[in-house]
Amino acid sequence: MSMRVVIVGGVAAGPKAACRIKRLMPEAKVTMVDRDSLISYGGCGIPYYVGGDVADLEGLLSTSFHMVRDANFFTKVKGLEVLTRTEVTRVDPQAKEVWACNLDTGEEMSLPYDKLVLATGSIPFIPPVPGKDLNNVVPVANLHHAKTIKEMVSQGQVGTAVIVGAGATGLEMAEAMADLWGIEVHIVEAAPQFLPGLADPQMARMLEIRMAEQEDIHLHLGASLEEVLDDGQGNACGVIAGGEKIESDVVIMGCGVRPNTSLAAEASLDLNQRGAILVDDHMCTSDPDIYAGGDCVSIKSMITGEGIFMPAGSLANREGRVIGTNIAGGDARFPGASGSFCIKLFGLSLARTGLNELQAKEAGFAARAVIVAQADRAHFHPDQKMMFLKLVVNETDRRILGLTAVGENGDAVVGRVNAVAGLLAAKATLEDLSNLELAYSPPLGAAVDVLNSAANAAENLLEGRLEPLAPEEFIKRLRDPQGSNTVFIDTRAFANAEPFLEAFGDDWVNIPQETLRERWQEVPKDKNVVLVCNSGVRSYESQLILKAKGYTNTVNLGGGMATMN
Amino acid sequence: MSMRVVIVGGVAAGPKAACRIKRLMPEAKVTMVDRDSLISYGGCGIPYYVGGDVADLEGLLSTSFHMVRDANFFTKVKGLEVLTRTEVTRVDPQAKEVWACNLDTGEEMSLPYDKLVLATGSIPFIPPVPGKDLNNVVPVANLHHAKTIKEMVSQGQVGTAVIVGAGATGLEMAEAMADLWGIEVHIVEAAPQFLPGLADPQMARMLEIRMAEQEDIHLHLGASLEEVLDDGQGNACGVIAGGEKIESDVVIMGCGVRPNTSLAAEASLDLNQRGAILVDDHMCTSDPDIYAGGDCVSIKSMITGEGIFMPAGSLANREGRVIGTNIAGGDARFPGASGSFCIKLFGLSLARTGLNELQAKEAGFAARAVIVAQADRAHFHPDQKMMFLKLVVNETDRRILGLTAVGENGDAVVGRVNAVAGLLAAKATLEDLSNLELAYSPPLGAAVDVLNSAANAAENLLEGRLEPLAPEEFIKRLRDPQGSNTVFIDTRAFANAEPFLEAFGDDWVNIPQETLRERWQEVPKDKNVVLVCNSGVRSYESQLILKAKGYTNTVNLGGGMATMN
Ligand SMILES: Cc1cc2nc3c(=O)[nH]c(=O)nc-3n(C[C@H](O)[C@H](O)[C@H](O)COP(=O)(O)OP(=O)(O)OC[C@H]3O[C@@H](n4cnc5c(N)ncnc54)[C@H](O)[C@@H]3O)c2cc1C
Ligand SMILES: Cc1cc2nc3c(=O)[nH]c(=O)nc-3n(C[C@H](O)[C@H](O)[C@H](O)COP(=O)(O)OP(=O)(O)OC[C@H]3O[C@@H](n4cnc5c(N)ncnc54)[C@H](O)[C@@H]3O)c2cc1C
Ligand SMILES: CC(C)(COP(=O)(O)OP(=O)(O)OC[C@H]1O[C@@H](n2cnc3c(N)ncnc32)[C@H](O)[C@@H]1OP(=O)(O)O)[C@@H](O)C(=O)NCCC(=O)NCCS
Ligand SMILES: CC(C)(COP(=O)(O)OP(=O)(O)OC[C@H]1O[C@@H](n2cnc3c(N)ncnc32)[C@H](O)[C@@H]1OP(=O)(O)O)[C@@H](O)C(=O)NCCC(=O)NCCS
Ligand SMILES: [Ca+2]
Ligand SMILES: [Ca+2]
Repeated sequence: MSMRVVIVGGVAAGPKAACRIKRLMPEAKVTMVDRDSLISYGGCGIPYYVGGDVADLEGLLSTSFHMVRDANFFTKVKGLEVLTRTEVTRVDPQAKEVWACNLDTGEEMSLPYDKLVLATGSIPFIPPVPGKDLNNVVPVANLHHAKTIKEMVSQGQVGTAVIVGAGATGLEMAEAMADLWGIEVHIVEAAPQFLPGLADPQMARMLEIRMAEQEDIHLHLGASLEEVLDDGQGNACGVIAGGEKIESDVVIMGCGVRPNTSLAAEASLDLNQRGAILVDDHMCTSDPDIYAGGDCVSIKSMITGEGIFMPAGSLANREGRVIGTNIAGGDARFPGASGSFCIKLFGLSLARTGLNELQAKEAGFAARAVIVAQADRAHFHPDQKMMFLKLVVNETDRRILGLTAVGENGDAVVGRVNAVAGLLAAKATLEDLSNLELAYSPPLGAAVDVLNSAANAAENLLEGRLEPLAPEEFIKRLRDPQGSNTVFIDTRAFANAEPFLEAFGDDWVNIPQETLRERWQEVPKDKNVVLVCNSGVRSYESQLILKAKGYTNTVNLGGGMATMN
Repeated sequence: MSMRVVIVGGVAAGPKAACRIKRLMPEAKVTMVDRDSLISYGGCGIPYYVGGDVADLEGLLSTSFHMVRDANFFTKVKGLEVLTRTEVTRVDPQAKEVWACNLDTGEEMSLPYDKLVLATGSIPFIPPVPGKDLNNVVPVANLHHAKTIKEMVSQGQVGTAVIVGAGATGLEMAEAMADLWGIEVHIVEAAPQFLPGLADPQMARMLEIRMAEQEDIHLHLGASLEEVLDDGQGNACGVIAGGEKIESDVVIMGCGVRPNTSLAAEASLDLNQRGAILVDDHMCTSDPDIYAGGDCVSIKSMITGEGIFMPAGSLANREGRVIGTNIAGGDARFPGASGSFCIKLFGLSLARTGLNELQAKEAGFAARAVIVAQADRAHFHPDQKMMFLKLVVNETDRRILGLTAVGENGDAVVGRVNAVAGLLAAKATLEDLSNLELAYSPPLGAAVDVLNSAANAAENLLEGRLEPLAPEEFIKRLRDPQGSNTVFIDTRAFANAEPFLEAFGDDWVNIPQETLRERWQEVPKDKNVVLVCNSGVRSYESQLILKAKGYTNTVNLGGGMATMN
């Protein structure tokens, strides 16, 4: 008899596994079950649908050749049996069957399986505050939410919106609503930064600045949601957050997701402490006939080897394919994740992979970090834009631990991060990155790419040649040069230094780098010397010149004044 | 006494090594010698200067902070001694000195060294044809050539130009002259393709088509230069190439370069058969006190381990830094090159790394290749463009050998190639690439990236599931369906198939993929069946459906109809 496979969950991991199985094992009987009416959709595209880049909801449900992926599509095109609006209520691993219920007819059914796939995904986290269940409080987790929000917006019901959570979804929704619809958007976030737990605070800061510049966007960082306010008729009319009252017509919840694993728990599969399903590198659970993938599982960090929860459509698909191959008798491994992530907001992109500085320290690495600023292609090419990289390395073995990139050319930003993602798993070192062969032509790269420069700067850091001052610390000292006994030496041309000379008087001194080999004696030895240039190159070179003259009291501003904008 | 270092050559490898030495060893006396008056220039930028993207020549000579890199700059900023217009005539490794001659005064001098760096670069190859020494025959190798060409062009002396060689320089110059100046440009190339020896012919074809579409550009592929024609006054007035006479006002030579190693040869350093200097992984020559880098050396291929000649400004800089570190007492290694390259022409970019199909076969690998076509980001995002990848793998161990990418979003194209370049050295396999964690957000990537898809398609190829037909072969069969006993089954929607149905009658049959599970019996078993869709996905899936029904006579068009434009 042909193999019977049941798949629970029909968005990304589920259908990917199902389709792969049917390609490798056409005789298998594969049944995919979802409680929703809509399946196989690009949830990631919701903000672009709300924001108008994707004209209608079908765009998120269609193949590149414009076929809507509904139950009929999967049957005709992929050869699956699909049950939508059907909830799986219980998994019985002993009997090797699942119980399900048709949500429209109430009909109960049992589905026997040889192999079972749990692709039950995640559920949005809603903070347990008063008012959380009011009307007009909407998470952004599926297409029904998307439709609801878009309808409210396009019917002109939303003048002001509160978005709770400055994670990826919240921020993308903020852009969509403010940019296209001119809605006044308030972003409320308990952490003091965007993308907490995900992005390096210093790099996230650049996105915060970009967002704060937008007329219709108001940031409330470090403001915990305390309450959703009732208009007296069961509708939300605002929130209280961080002690402040913010009125609004809708409250959008973007507070992250939790693995949806109640079925797995009831079936006694092994879960981690946070409730994610544990799987081996074949994506097999603690039951050899049950596989799991997507937002409901814990995967291995390729940096630390520990389990991590990384809900992402990209991983869900890759995991789904591995599951499919294995169920069809193959031997595919899913190696884990480096932690790649990217986001584009108002033209500015941030991408990251691996660990950021804080995460690396928490994981016990001897982590050191550099920030470099450099053009993303030949600096003489008209398309060039400044790119900012923060590279994290392990001091002891020079292993690369993580990279964050920010810049205006999104593909270029992501390109740098993708070039590093694969290297992390291979435990690449600084030397590998210093020599990484990024292709070069003036419109498409730089002879010494910003990524090579970051590795070189990190090497100089580890060898004690480069002694950087973090931008936060720079700002502190700038606020109180006398108290911190600091003099700032600006190694740029006079024209760049001039406004600072005017603002800071004797505390700011201009010694262009090309004059330093003659004028070095003007640099005091009894003060803390902060060397400054635009990107960090001339201040580094100045630091070396001064060191050679016996100075031990210099630091230089990592990433230069470019990071200060 | 402090170390004396002499550097011969002042463009990329030379100054990079020199500056690095001074940073690590400030007390060293470093003398950089070049016979040219102009040093440290971005030769790679010449086409962008001629084409107007770079407004003046100084742009190619300046730092990002607008200082011109002349001898004075290197002295003041970097602490070097610089001798321009000074030719090194002899290296005496026994006496550890070089002899040089000031080209303006004729003065001869001897420069003693503890360590010597040869960064003598390359010289343009000029085909030995009659007329090659006429006026108006100009190579494109340095800023003097750039100036000459730009002056002729901007003074309106050039109505028609012949460019000999469809390598990177020739093609970039062709764009510069045709696009900005409306000059009628003829590209003459002996090989039947663009970028011979560098790019896969099939992928290069896309650039050829893009170029051929330009009003002012005329391609003469497979046409050897036979003669440069004399106007009777010592000026070139055209060429004879491939038997054809082409009139023109200037003949630009873009026939590649040869390592410039006469000094090294006379000093009895080890060279390879083609005259490039042999170096170890510390960039040290056969003389332990002489290092060499840049266009004058042979480096190790990270794929085959053999020596290769890869003149590139990016490698010259990375090698120069390694030399600098080692001379200053460090221990830096240059691992070799994967062969990364990129070019952008009229908005279309091609990038590659590793070996192409032919090179891989010649190197003795059991090379197989797939072509995939897919959107370069979420297919529903408005910025998406089709990207084409050709991936080459080794059948025996599934090692990735090379990748070529073509598409409209240059940064996205290069990004895919850069993500693979580092993996090649680590001997990554298809499985690594299938799971490579490319960051995903709809404006910046795809849930299953085109790079993951290419790995998956290659896996299907190796396992015999995907049986592709090469586009050339497809065209052959299309020209003679009866003779090749072929039927084309178009698995797209009727609207896409319609024009082909009209053109090819019974030889072209439309069975949309979603109907194939019902209509499979319409597919003949006694003919060669070519399955067709837009990108290769539906035809692959159709192939599997037919195989499951016992068909063994199907192939599918790799990359789909998208590759046919
Ligand atoms: C607004 C938004 C933006 C996003 N942006 C990105 C992005 O840019 N990049 C990225 O990589 N990811 C992004 N994601 C995340 C991505 O969408 C998810 O990681 C992905 O959808 C996970 O797929 P999955 O198949 O694991 O689970 P889910 O998408 O959660 O689907 C699980 C399915 O299982 C069904 N189900 C659950 N339990 C049962 C049951 N008992 N019976 C029947 N059916 C059941 C549910 O109805 C649901 O349809 C975004 C998500 C959202 C919402
Ligand atoms: C038009 C053009 C476009 C290019 N595009 C790209 C690109 O997109 N990407 C890329 O990576 N590369 C590109 N390149 C190649 C790149 O410019 C070279 O690889 C790079 O310049 C090599 O640097 P080098 O220091 O090794 O040698 P060279 O640039 O060749 O410099 C050698 C120097 O040595 C001097 N010299 C030689 N012999 C002596 C002697 N006996 N005494 C004194 N001086 C001597 C010469 O005068 C010369 O200045 C391009 C080149 C050109 C011309
Ligand atoms: C689309 C979906 C149903 C999976 O179906 P699928 O049939 O596996 O997906 P595709 O059509 O992309 O791929 C079909 C096959 O073509 C192959 N393929 C892709 N591009 C190809 C090309 N250009 N040439 C040849 N083969 C190609 C794939 O590798 C795959 O075969 P394999 O897995 O056997 O190797 C599932 O991914 C899904 O539901 N996605 C939408 C939702 C989603 O991903 N949401 C989260 C992110 S927002
Ligand atoms: C520019 C040139 C003279 C080299 O000089 P250089 O002083 O080594 O180069 P840079 O100014 O880029 O770098 C100076 C230092 O700053 C470091 N650096 C670069 N960006 C940095 C940043 N943002 N923060 C801190 N340090 C940085 C570099 O790593 C380097 O230090 P290191 O080598 O000791 O690690 C040489 O590359 C050259 O002549 N180039 C032009 C010609 C050319 O490359 N042509 C071919 C291509 S078209
Ligand atoms: Ca707008
Ligand atoms: Ca033009």
